[in-house]
Amino acid sequence: MQVDLLILNANVFNSYFKKWTPGNVAVRDGKFLYIGERGAETFEAGQVVDAKGRYMLPGLVDIHLHIESTMVTPHSFSYGLIRNGVTTIVPEPHEMANVFGLEGVREMIKASADCTADMFYAIPSSVPATSLETSGGSIEIADMDELLASGEAVCLGEIMNYVDIISDPDCKTNRILMHMKKNHPQLVIEGHVPKLLDLDLQRVIYAGVDSDHTHQTVEGLEARIAAGMFIEIQEKSMTPEVIAYLIYHDVSEHFCFVTDDVMADSFRARGHLNQIVRKAISMGMKPERAIYAATYTPARRMRLYDRGVIAPGKLADFLLVSDLEEMKIDAVYKNGTLAYSADRPYEPEPAPYRFPAHFYQSVKLGELSETDFALRTDAPNGRYACRVMAVQDGSTFTNENRVELEAIAGRLRWETSGCGLIATFERYGKHGGRAVGLIAGDTIKRGAVATTYSHDNHNLLVVGHNVKDMVLAANTVIRQQGGFCVVHEGEVLANMHLPVGGILTEAPLDEAAESVKQVRQAMESLGYKHYNPIMSISTHSLPVSPYLKITDHGLIDVNAGKVVPLIVE
Amino acid sequence: MQVDLLILNANVFNSYFKKWTPGNVAVRDGKFLYIGERGAETFEAGQVVDAKGRYMLPGLVDIHLHIESTMVTPHSFSYGLIRNGVTTIVPEPHEMANVFGLEGVREMIKASADCTADMFYAIPSSVPATSLETSGGSIEIADMDELLASGEAVCLGEIMNYVDIISDPDCKTNRILMHMKKNHPQLVIEGHVPKLLDLDLQRVIYAGVDSDHTHQTVEGLEARIAAGMFIEIQEKSMTPEVIAYLIYHDVSEHFCFVTDDVMADSFRARGHLNQIVRKAISMGMKPERAIYAATYTPARRMRLYDRGVIAPGKLADFLLVSDLEEMKIDAVYKNGTLAYSADRPYEPEPAPYRFPAHFYQSVKLGELSETDFALRTDAPNGRYACRVMAVQDGSTFTNENRVELEAIAGRLRWETSGCGLIATFERYGKHGGRAVGLIAGDTIKRGAVATTYSHDNHNLLVVGHNVKDMVLAANTVIRQQGGFCVVHEGEVLANMHLPVGGILTEAPLDEAAESVKQVRQAMESLGYKHYNPIMSISTHSLPVSPYLKITDHGLIDVNAGKVVPLIVE
Repeated sequence: MQVDLLILNANVFNSYFKKWTPGNVAVRDGKFLYIGERGAETFEAGQVVDAKGRYMLPGLVDIHLHIESTMVTPHSFSYGLIRNGVTTIVPEPHEMANVFGLEGVREMIKASADCTADMFYAIPSSVPATSLETSGGSIEIADMDELLASGEAVCLGEIMNYVDIISDPDCKTNRILMHMKKNHPQLVIEGHVPKLLDLDLQRVIYAGVDSDHTHQTVEGLEARIAAGMFIEIQEKSMTPEVIAYLIYHDVSEHFCFVTDDVMADSFRARGHLNQIVRKAISMGMKPERAIYAATYTPARRMRLYDRGVIAPGKLADFLLVSDLEEMKIDAVYKNGTLAYSADRPYEPEPAPYRFPAHFYQSVKLGELSETDFALRTDAPNGRYACRVMAVQDGSTFTNENRVELEAIAGRLRWETSGCGLIATFERYGKHGGRAVGLIAGDTIKRGAVATTYSHDNHNLLVVGHNVKDMVLAANTVIRQQGGFCVVHEGEVLANMHLPVGGILTEAPLDEAAESVKQVRQAMESLGYKHYNPIMSISTHSLPVSPYLKITDHGLIDVNAGKVVPLIVE
Repeated sequence: MQVDLLILNANVFNSYFKKWTPGNVAVRDGKFLYIGERGAETFEAGQVVDAKGRYMLPGLVDIHLHIESTMVTPHSFSYGLIRNGVTTIVPEPHEMANVFGLEGVREMIKASADCTADMFYAIPSSVPATSLETSGGSIEIADMDELLASGEAVCLGEIMNYVDIISDPDCKTNRILMHMKKNHPQLVIEGHVPKLLDLDLQRVIYAGVDSDHTHQTVEGLEARIAAGMFIEIQEKSMTPEVIAYLIYHDVSEHFCFVTDDVMADSFRARGHLNQIVRKAISMGMKPERAIYAATYTPARRMRLYDRGVIAPGKLADFLLVSDLEEMKIDAVYKNGTLAYSADRPYEPEPAPYRFPAHFYQSVKLGELSETDFALRTDAPNGRYACRVMAVQDGSTFTNENRVELEAIAGRLRWETSGCGLIATFERYGKHGGRAVGLIAGDTIKRGAVATTYSHDNHNLLVVGHNVKDMVLAANTVIRQQGGFCVVHEGEVLANMHLPVGGILTEAPLDEAAESVKQVRQAMESLGYKHYNPIMSISTHSLPVSPYLKITDHGLIDVNAGKVVPLIVE
């Protein structure tokens, strides 16, 4: 019988029995045809590969992630995926949707179309996530219907407003959920349900949200599985207790591994979903179960029944691995074709997608000057207690601290307070909203940082202790239509250009990784004390993450869900 | 919080952990809302039921069966299902499709619409199954597309021609499969793959067929699961070896229980899918695993994600069971409403569906006379070896025996040969094809039987030892537009009226059961020696079941796939 590819002498992963079977594998038309003892005596193969007893496992499948977190375009992302054995992903273009709405989602889908890794899209369900910020675009129910009708999307991405689901029957999220249950009853709806238990948890599931990828505890994990949730374990959930639970309980069908957000430099240095598998194995999980949770269960969760397993009729996406514990990937095949080999140079995918011209002109702001950073007040001269956003190492949550400042002639004098300034400028040319506030804690101690990569609205965010530096950093980012710029005493220490929507570079992954590393190190050199300064600073404007944040509407008390004044009343 | 129903003190089956959890269950809008410790202090319920510690399990789900095998309409079938705890089925109307084609399928779907049990339809994929018979209707690819586009069907029913898949790339089955893979890539395709192993098995799976409900051996079962097949275990597969395999291997995700064909009298006496669960438990399977295989896995196989489990957001289809080993069902709830209670009278569902008028006029045959049963031949006078269909107890397969008969004046004299006659008459008014042959073995020894319930073509089939009796039986069936009539020495011993398409009665299930029992006993009184004479006789005309069968085309050598003459050449 004629086949395209014959792999001989492999140790083939059988997902149905979660065990290894020595044998040969025949591939025809990009799909597995046969796994078993038959070889060259039965199959006349276009290509024969001797696996020499290596492990053969399905291509990894990552069903919850955001490409934009890596700040690269889908082509560069695919390059990184394939090298790490990830052949299918379900990205949610939440950030691009905040910048460009439906068009942003569609452009990401188009940009992914001819990538080597398969990308099936989740519809951003919470854009904008609140009414307390001005984003570039929004995703409405009609947009979701369009994406579903055209088959461009496979699921509804993480529903973030779990509090609203329970407390406000008429909120946008409940309207979305009711619409989907009625019009798309089979749709997979992904969740973001931290901490909830008992009745609150079950009400969210009743509303249609039946997965969770947030930080897990053993108690929460067990309650979620018992109530029918599928659990997506990301690295921060991989505590010894949680992994022990997953190892010792019969819950293999109910969880998978995901990456969620991977910075470009971590992608380069540590890898991607393969790194999570490696870590799970190092924490004591059997390789067979770790692989299962990175292939079979995620594919099933997304109803991608044609992959995630080496069996007849399934897509021939597979890896040859020489060291299982280390997940040492020697070769990656996509649709039966060699896509990566450790033995030969691996080049970036050619001819990346060109986005529409206006995607490169998204920062609609004139240059700023020092007066734009004045801490203005209507209050008469005197001393006032002011709110300060206090950055905490190890968290994206901030605290609200207080400092007493003097108001003189309509300006608050902050310069000797020990605090820095934080400012944000609406940059979509809508109404020019802006806010200036105070910042302290584990952030930079001198110089300035400006970025358009600021969740979720991606307006221009500037933090600094020196207004001149702030102006330089901000104008550098404005002039280059997006990026991440770090300045100290008039000198640009690091500057990453993010021309696509102000949030993505078109550079190859390894180059992006180098830029991210430089930005990170530059911020650290200015005193930033956080395990991930980029994530930390880019969430200062995220008004769904407690406690005190800033948007173009002003300072946001996240738990109260409202704008609060700088001066405490 | 307001809810419709609150079940207190239940021992609730948790499908995700396959264990029992004591607690309360709240139902709202026909769906489970909450399972846990909260009760009346949290929920204001329209109705409160004290389960008194009884077992609460999901409604059973049967995904492979043919309603027509019970010879009743969907309403009567639903009545029987609910009483036995089966709340969802996926019937394949293979027989009605053979009689009326697409219209037959559509009418079964319409007839099911307001039944208490939910019925999701499988599209008959093999109608007609061969070109060696004349059926009333056929199902073509365009018909399948129509049923899929309208959402009337959930899967493609059992692909029967597995041999063609392997041997004939251009056969109708392969054309169907290629069409479905291209146009409906997510479609569930059900299989009928007896005995195949190794490359042949995997080629069928590669073609898209990935379930099997035929008789299983341990070797075949393991090979099927390893290659990605989902196994549907029917009663004949429940050998001690197979059940032991299912008990001792971690394959819970890969199989379910199904009934396939249940005769009306067995339905009444033994039950339905609950009987299979009971039997599995009696054979040593843990109740939790047996229930899982009759609820969770079948629902998932058919992608009915809204049921098969007691969890928030799922349909509130459930049973209260007081004795688990005996599966003693005290109450059945459908969509949160009591549908059956052992404590009160259980009435047939009212107002059954009325089929179109021509569904009651499907036997387009004038009355027959004795000359219609003459064994005519063109051969000159002399003695000839003739083929005899030899019925075997315990099987639907027949053998081919030989007998020497004398030809006199164009007629073969069979009367003193010890053989009986078997005749079939095309009854759709197409061309009046007919055939007469010889029968022997474990069939009736005297009298006659006539029926329009004869697989797959459902033409009029008559078996007898006495031509007068054969005429009487045949004309009784013709006059009443379908049925099953048993005659001896001019007396009608039993007569079941099957007015809908000549294959279904509109009588209530228990009445149909009584009729079936009478037909069976009447055939047994005439010497039929088979554990199921109705199934036996109704498959004499089934040209996909070895070895010698009869259709309006003539005697069929099934393995050769062709018509053979009565006189051996």
